[in-house]
Amino acid sequence: MQIGMIGLGRMGSNMVQRLMKNGHTAVVFDARAQSVEDLKGMGATGSSSLEDFVAKLDKPRAIWMMLPAAIVDNELTKLVPLLEEGDIIIDGGNSYYHDDIRRAAMLKQKGIHYVDVGTSGGVFGLQRGYCLMIGGETPTVQHLSPIFATLAPGMGDVKSSAQRSEVAAAKSTAEQGFLHCGPHGAGHFVKMVHNGIEYGLMAAYAEGFNILRHANIGMQQAEADAETAPMSNPEFYQYNLDIPEIAEVWRRGSVITSWLLDLTADALHEDPALSQYAGRVSDSGEGRWTISAAIDEGVPTPVLSAALFSRFSSRGNDGFANQVLSAMRAGFGGHHEKPPVR
Amino acid sequence: MQIGMIGLGRMGSNMVQRLMKNGHTAVVFDARAQSVEDLKGMGATGSSSLEDFVAKLDKPRAIWMMLPAAIVDNELTKLVPLLEEGDIIIDGGNSYYHDDIRRAAMLKQKGIHYVDVGTSGGVFGLQRGYCLMIGGETPTVQHLSPIFATLAPGMGDVKSSAQRSEVAAAKSTAEQGFLHCGPHGAGHFVKMVHNGIEYGLMAAYAEGFNILRHANIGMQQAEADAETAPMSNPEFYQYNLDIPEIAEVWRRGSVITSWLLDLTADALHEDPALSQYAGRVSDSGEGRWTISAAIDEGVPTPVLSAALFSRFSSRGNDGFANQVLSAMRAGFGGHHEKPPVR
Amino acid sequence: MQIGMIGLGRMGSNMVQRLMKNGHTAVVFDARAQSVEDLKGMGATGSSSLEDFVAKLDKPRAIWMMLPAAIVDNELTKLVPLLEEGDIIIDGGNSYYHDDIRRAAMLKQKGIHYVDVGTSGGVFGLQRGYCLMIGGETPTVQHLSPIFATLAPGMGDVKSSAQRSEVAAAKSTAEQGFLHCGPHGAGHFVKMVHNGIEYGLMAAYAEGFNILRHANIGMQQAEADAETAPMSNPEFYQYNLDIPEIAEVWRRGSVITSWLLDLTADALHEDPALSQYAGRVSDSGEGRWTISAAIDEGVPTPVLSAALFSRFSSRGNDGFANQVLSAMRAGFGGHHEKPPVR
Amino acid sequence: MQIGMIGLGRMGSNMVQRLMKNGHTAVVFDARAQSVEDLKGMGATGSSSLEDFVAKLDKPRAIWMMLPAAIVDNELTKLVPLLEEGDIIIDGGNSYYHDDIRRAAMLKQKGIHYVDVGTSGGVFGLQRGYCLMIGGETPTVQHLSPIFATLAPGMGDVKSSAQRSEVAAAKSTAEQGFLHCGPHGAGHFVKMVHNGIEYGLMAAYAEGFNILRHANIGMQQAEADAETAPMSNPEFYQYNLDIPEIAEVWRRGSVITSWLLDLTADALHEDPALSQYAGRVSDSGEGRWTISAAIDEGVPTPVLSAALFSRFSSRGNDGFANQVLSAMRAGFGGHHEKPPVR
Repeated sequence: MQIGMIGLGRMGSNMVQRLMKNGHTAVVFDARAQSVEDLKGMGATGSSSLEDFVAKLDKPRAIWMMLPAAIVDNELTKLVPLLEEGDIIIDGGNSYYHDDIRRAAMLKQKGIHYVDVGTSGGVFGLQRGYCLMIGGETPTVQHLSPIFATLAPGMGDVKSSAQRSEVAAAKSTAEQGFLHCGPHGAGHFVKMVHNGIEYGLMAAYAEGFNILRHANIGMQQAEADAETAPMSNPEFYQYNLDIPEIAEVWRRGSVITSWLLDLTADALHEDPALSQYAGRVSDSGEGRWTISAAIDEGVPTPVLSAALFSRFSSRGNDGFANQVLSAMRAGFGGHHEKPPVR
Repeated sequence: MQIGMIGLGRMGSNMVQRLMKNGHTAVVFDARAQSVEDLKGMGATGSSSLEDFVAKLDKPRAIWMMLPAAIVDNELTKLVPLLEEGDIIIDGGNSYYHDDIRRAAMLKQKGIHYVDVGTSGGVFGLQRGYCLMIGGETPTVQHLSPIFATLAPGMGDVKSSAQRSEVAAAKSTAEQGFLHCGPHGAGHFVKMVHNGIEYGLMAAYAEGFNILRHANIGMQQAEADAETAPMSNPEFYQYNLDIPEIAEVWRRGSVITSWLLDLTADALHEDPALSQYAGRVSDSGEGRWTISAAIDEGVPTPVLSAALFSRFSSRGNDGFANQVLSAMRAGFGGHHEKPPVR
Repeated sequence: MQIGMIGLGRMGSNMVQRLMKNGHTAVVFDARAQSVEDLKGMGATGSSSLEDFVAKLDKPRAIWMMLPAAIVDNELTKLVPLLEEGDIIIDGGNSYYHDDIRRAAMLKQKGIHYVDVGTSGGVFGLQRGYCLMIGGETPTVQHLSPIFATLAPGMGDVKSSAQRSEVAAAKSTAEQGFLHCGPHGAGHFVKMVHNGIEYGLMAAYAEGFNILRHANIGMQQAEADAETAPMSNPEFYQYNLDIPEIAEVWRRGSVITSWLLDLTADALHEDPALSQYAGRVSDSGEGRWTISAAIDEGVPTPVLSAALFSRFSSRGNDGFANQVLSAMRAGFGGHHEKPPVR
Repeated sequence: MQIGMIGLGRMGSNMVQRLMKNGHTAVVFDARAQSVEDLKGMGATGSSSLEDFVAKLDKPRAIWMMLPAAIVDNELTKLVPLLEEGDIIIDGGNSYYHDDIRRAAMLKQKGIHYVDVGTSGGVFGLQRGYCLMIGGETPTVQHLSPIFATLAPGMGDVKSSAQRSEVAAAKSTAEQGFLHCGPHGAGHFVKMVHNGIEYGLMAAYAEGFNILRHANIGMQQAEADAETAPMSNPEFYQYNLDIPEIAEVWRRGSVITSWLLDLTADALHEDPALSQYAGRVSDSGEGRWTISAAIDEGVPTPVLSAALFSRFSSRGNDGFANQVLSAMRAGFGGHHEKPPVR
């Protein structure tokens, strides 16, 4: 099947490669000509402009956009006038599902189909396959299923859940690694929650490793004054732990095995102090939207929100709040700030 | 090698079976005679009392205790007078590592060696192997390594971390699924943090699935009054999602794949409403101790503590706090409680 | 000065009374005729319909709406066509400040002025006065200042901050209890954050009192099993505390004195067990919007969000999440739920 | 009545002054001779050594220790051998209540009485009086009541709770600002929870003011890339708010009035940017112990713990956790850290 791909960053480029390796053809476009050239060298049909790109696609066109969420609407403004009734636009990036609902309604007026696809797998997707969460109308989604089936990991050696019924298995492609989740926006909604969970999982590991790392704090000398809580039990914190090896052993048979742990073990083995990282942790939309959705639903998310807020704090955004605390302490107790004991 | 096992619950019994299947021999004891009988039928040497148990063990004895943390000290009081210099006691349960440090010091005075082993793997350990985190003196731990190597999963198909150095590989058994973490208490310390992380991971998934489950809240009618926040965007919450299939698709190629997700998918396939569970979630020590350790170290654990506190709340332990809130609201605003809209 | 008041619930009615007691006049309207009659009996001019209400007001009209946020837009749809250029609409309820911005722009096209007023003080405002946070254009806000000055508490015996400069004092009315915070929406924005803080303060007290209440937990018998963390130090939880008297003593000279504590002390003295409250705690918009604003700003609010989420949980909205946790525990550990020990 | 005071820091010195102003006499001791001299100049009896101090006190001696928690035990070791049966030791500092229980039992063997007094009021106590939370045996506490009554604020203009029964009023001194909370440790237990609440209250204000401060974030330019969540609604964050004046207006008639808010307003008026504070916030024991107590009791404290953990993070103790997060993000997504947008 033929796919048109707009946006040839790491994600878009890898997806085109995975598709072509498995017998699909691709017409590609990117504002950076070099990105187009690179894929031409691997067999893709390049294009020099959006007009050229659209002209080279068979009808009905299937156009996959793999772009930063912030520029999708702008790109659509240029693209849509070039399209015809029956064409399909797939947003495979990290759009807010609210935008999907709006765009689908707008495009429907022109007879253009819209599909939102949440894509997980990161830079490993080229080899490992991408987990795809899909929203849109059923006929359109089914029309695109050869593409989804190729991008997805397939069953591989992950057995289907023991308890999964045959009825479920018959009507769903989940075990292939892609799922039609529901109407417009459902794909990005599920991907949003996926990322919200991801934030929570990552923070759980990060906090745990931080505790391990400070397990030798009792070996350090601390002075006693009214400002500092004395360590009452230094004898319990005398461990110099080999953190990379702990990550390694947890990967085998423990309850907390996961792919994120595998990645963490890799990073820790490379440098146990992780000194190349300053620890300013970005967040890219879905984590925030997950909490907003939870609040709209009235669903408590203390863990997922704590994970998000830790990222904010890691970037210093808690600065004024902390100054207010210090000012209060000076106010009622005459407490003066002192440098931290690390 | 011969092991003595005290405590033949699910964990202890499975461990004995796994050891015997792989060429070790076992002398077993439990207050419940039937548990002893069951293992005798599988080839173990039974014993009718602690005295009998001790008498049947070769010297130096290696005695593995697999008991609820709360009764270990009581059992030790009875066991220790029967032992001799050079014997080894292994606590493979969920003891607090503070207790390990105390016990090791006490036993050392009698020339008895103590090893603490944090054991992860749950009911699947018999087939899958147990991840073992070990604390104690090096010679004793090395003496027991045939036992650890058999209980652990071994390398299996989990490849060693790509970045793991040969130096690390040469000096550590982590890739076999067991690790000598450090001196007395280090095994249970690492296991404690493991469980703290586990609480966080579990809560991250649980909160995420809860958001998915309420994604149809916009379909419900809600009245508008001064007490209730009106839902301003019901159009964004119109999804009836197939939660078991979402769990299934996430197991393939997504960033959040894990063994806990596999288990969750199983449970959701069995019953998407999980109606056999009331949602009163127990906690069993390590989660609490993890937060205490973090506080002693001055390490922030907003995610792990939120996970713990959610469990407390699930059991109704937030009751009086909530009553105080309602009383305050009545006090300043004349607000009257109303039944929740679910 | 004359004010028109729409919405004669507890808040609106009390505000009219406070204004009339201090020399202002009022034209009032409410869908419930009895509410209108009640205020007529105290000197207000009643009206039988919106048309009647508008007709009885001097121009330029100053109309204060004190309505549930959810019905303001609907009311405006009926009211606006009856108004003329130069009239003023004040929304003194709990509207979302996003709505203020939208409404102000819409009304501006008709030459109608819009002012948003966040109002704090609850049912005590009639005697104590209302703290007013105001957004809108300066001339309109100044025009209304006689009304604001009367509704506000005035200086009373709360001295101005010692550090407040004369410059600040000269240009601001904050020490009178009302403040022009900024352009449209600024009043409700500041009120929103006020309520977000309120949630946090309330939760801090509630959690603390809950700890006090369970300070006798060591007196209770608890069985030891693998499911339950044994209480290792029951000797530290042997206190039967007199919670109302603790609230009382904290009101005098402690760092945590506050009006909310005064109210809590009252409620606890009335009934130390607060047994008339089930503890299902509502939330009414601002708490949610505060977290959304924080997330938009990238500002961490772990405390304020935890307070909000506790309210969600108090209403059982964590139910499915807890079921997922129990299902996981059954999955990996064979753990069975047990009733809570309270 | 005569009191002996050991520890003449700000708190101890002010307490002696408050006592002497109201007719009590004092014998004082401190390792710093100048502190002793200063109080001698105000009428106290100075002493040059512990022996001298003890000798100058009437029997039964009443000795108040106002020392950092970390050195109390050391001081007791020196003091106790000098005392006689019937003497009284009062620990008015911030000791852990576990220590009170231990010390009281130890001293009881020598016939010495021990009283633990949690003291709130900070540097304002000299004028405002101290809120006293007292643990110990009833006869001893009653013997000391003249001291407590003078140190406490008394009723002043804080009326007793409207709902407080005459029975309660008759048997308790809470309305005077001091309360016998229960047996040994009860005073410091209640003070501990008081401080835990204080942490939560402070954090609630701090987070709220931080939101106000960033209410102009929509005025700032932000680039769009895959790493940064684009701000979708900059039009909602166009407020340059006068934060000191907002603090000022909230002090009048709002629901969130409190003494902590008064102090915050002072600090903000002095410098709206609080630029003299770096925002490294200390914690001094009680906040930590409060969470430990909550965990022991199984009582959820998501708000109080979040407040504590924010302080840890303010001192950089989340560093390694954040590095782990960045390493994970690099691992699965090739994400590179970027400097924060503030």
